[in-house]
Amino acid sequence: MKFEVKVSDKNTSARTGEIATDHGTISTPIFMPIGTQGAVKTVSPKELKEINTQIILGNTYHLYLRPGTDLINSAGGLHNFMSWDKPILTDSGGFQIFSLARLNKIADDGVEFQSHLDGSKHFLTPEKSMEIQRQLGSDMIMAFDECPPADADINVVKQAVKRTELWIKRCKQYLSDNPGIYDWRQTLFPIVQGGVSLKLRKQSVETVAPFADCGIAIGGLAVGEEKSAMFDIIEQMDELLPKDQPRYLMGVGTPADLIYAVRRGVDMFDCVLPTRNARNGQLFTSFGKLNIRNEKYKTDFTPIDENCGCTTCKSFTKAYIRHLFNINEVLGLRLATIHNLYYYHNLMEMIRLHIETGDFGEWSRKYLNKIGAE
Amino acid sequence: MKFEVKVSDKNTSARTGEIATDHGTISTPIFMPIGTQGAVKTVSPKELKEINTQIILGNTYHLYLRPGTDLINSAGGLHNFMSWDKPILTDSGGFQIFSLARLNKIADDGVEFQSHLDGSKHFLTPEKSMEIQRQLGSDMIMAFDECPPADADINVVKQAVKRTELWIKRCKQYLSDNPGIYDWRQTLFPIVQGGVSLKLRKQSVETVAPFADCGIAIGGLAVGEEKSAMFDIIEQMDELLPKDQPRYLMGVGTPADLIYAVRRGVDMFDCVLPTRNARNGQLFTSFGKLNIRNEKYKTDFTPIDENCGCTTCKSFTKAYIRHLFNINEVLGLRLATIHNLYYYHNLMEMIRLHIETGDFGEWSRKYLNKIGAE
Repeated sequence: MKFEVKVSDKNTSARTGEIATDHGTISTPIFMPIGTQGAVKTVSPKELKEINTQIILGNTYHLYLRPGTDLINSAGGLHNFMSWDKPILTDSGGFQIFSLARLNKIADDGVEFQSHLDGSKHFLTPEKSMEIQRQLGSDMIMAFDECPPADADINVVKQAVKRTELWIKRCKQYLSDNPGIYDWRQTLFPIVQGGVSLKLRKQSVETVAPFADCGIAIGGLAVGEEKSAMFDIIEQMDELLPKDQPRYLMGVGTPADLIYAVRRGVDMFDCVLPTRNARNGQLFTSFGKLNIRNEKYKTDFTPIDENCGCTTCKSFTKAYIRHLFNINEVLGLRLATIHNLYYYHNLMEMIRLHIETGDFGEWSRKYLNKIGAE
Repeated sequence: MKFEVKVSDKNTSARTGEIATDHGTISTPIFMPIGTQGAVKTVSPKELKEINTQIILGNTYHLYLRPGTDLINSAGGLHNFMSWDKPILTDSGGFQIFSLARLNKIADDGVEFQSHLDGSKHFLTPEKSMEIQRQLGSDMIMAFDECPPADADINVVKQAVKRTELWIKRCKQYLSDNPGIYDWRQTLFPIVQGGVSLKLRKQSVETVAPFADCGIAIGGLAVGEEKSAMFDIIEQMDELLPKDQPRYLMGVGTPADLIYAVRRGVDMFDCVLPTRNARNGQLFTSFGKLNIRNEKYKTDFTPIDENCGCTTCKSFTKAYIRHLFNINEVLGLRLATIHNLYYYHNLMEMIRLHIETGDFGEWSRKYLNKIGAE
């Protein structure tokens, strides 16, 4: 995998770039839709391509439980299994264990948990996470880390930083000892922890960055802390992280968050917001959010967003989509998801365009104002 | 609307033809997917076109309750509302009242019922059914009829035949007095009732056929009677119905049913089977049915049907679709629906082809054998 910075903004840390993978090249800054269990909920790979999705994220925890990594391995990897031939990034499984599963024990060796599906017991270690991700065949592999919540005691955060250091070494070692089983390369992203403590963040960068070949992730944010604290840390990280590698801010965020983080030098994002909110009827537009279930759209025969070029907006009205939500017709969930993902991808494309034309600062201030962000 | 018989089979009553409507021409024999509430469940109009859907059916009862006919009228009719520019046939609402709603009273004047959604009271008459279908703007309007179940007393069936006669006159009168409100023509299909009694069927044809301009429907079958009794009646109807109009057998059926009915001179079909069964995991193939949830498909990395040209079979494996059903991912419902509808449309295309090449009888015997039909 290779990363090349194309254009750096004069006034902010924003930059455009390209990540070359064996499944194609990705233009950054980039948003990655979440394909939790081998599918981006409600949409097909063909539709993802039509709305210019360049890379998707798969969840190791979910795929490990269902359909199981052996099955995906037999299918020739996750790309083949789900019929998606562009890049895939997989997480390490750790975050879902902490947030979804019943966590039994966490120790230096690994994490013991019970499946949220059937209560079955499992033990995940850095080595096991790497083994699973080898079998999934993702282009980008995330390190197995410990991600404490925002209200964790400082000693827990310190412990997590230490454990994340210990574990990145074991991840790297496993990958060196066990080369990939498919015809393409897989790149390990170390993850920086340290909560909202600058001191711990510095320590974490120092210990994990040496393991980064091409890409490093900022973890442990968007876990309940104040937005201002999150952006402070991202700004400080910008100084600490290598400039020549893509930076991936995990689990963020709203359209405004993406713009603020790009200003601070972030290149990659993933978030459930566009897909999950779509399924709840919340739609993103160039003039802010709207909820399609609202009574006022009952006889509104205009598209969700007149300025939007997605297939949903080109073919269907708010009144029709509202009707589909009313009758619980799954086509509605899909039309909403396509719109929201298109919106996110289009936002990233505008961000890239304005960085390259040199007016990113001015454009983004105006845009934030238009969508009603502070 | 115009109907033209193209080729009549030498050995059976099968024939190919073309129905010209203001929304395009339909090749018969034809299968019409059911778009109950302004959407063929799980699929988009674009996908319907990609699998060669030529006409869809809308349910008057459902659309009248939600989103309401005024709303669809404001949208410029059902075609505009749901973004489907090919022909639409709407039923009269009667069948759903009998099968879904709480029926309070049926009399010569009309039918009083309570909505299955909220218990609200409504009164549907032949005139009201015509008014609604005028507002929906369907290309083909079904007469308001009474459709008794198979176990109904002969006197109830007689009564239904009489009422259906009374009502077709009122339907016709209403349509004459109230011309269409859109820029396209709408054609009324009278419905023949009479259960499995040849005498009553004859009587019904004599009384309703004079009201047919271009198209007549065979109602009151597939309501619980023996299959053999159904096909006997269809065979007798073939003698009684005008040859120069399309015959529409309502609510039928399995792939084998379609072949048997085409042999007996039927031109048009609708049925929930391909769409509803798809959502239950039951898939139709050129070698019979299969249920995708079956454990044996867990590691089956072949398509549903190697001989199928649908997008589902071209891109996805049984193992993947089974996984989607396992995790309740709605993409699975869609992939299954697309496959089943493609199968039905392709079956009709093969039927048309073999009628035209002159080997329909022989081909259909072999085909029925292949799919395991008796």
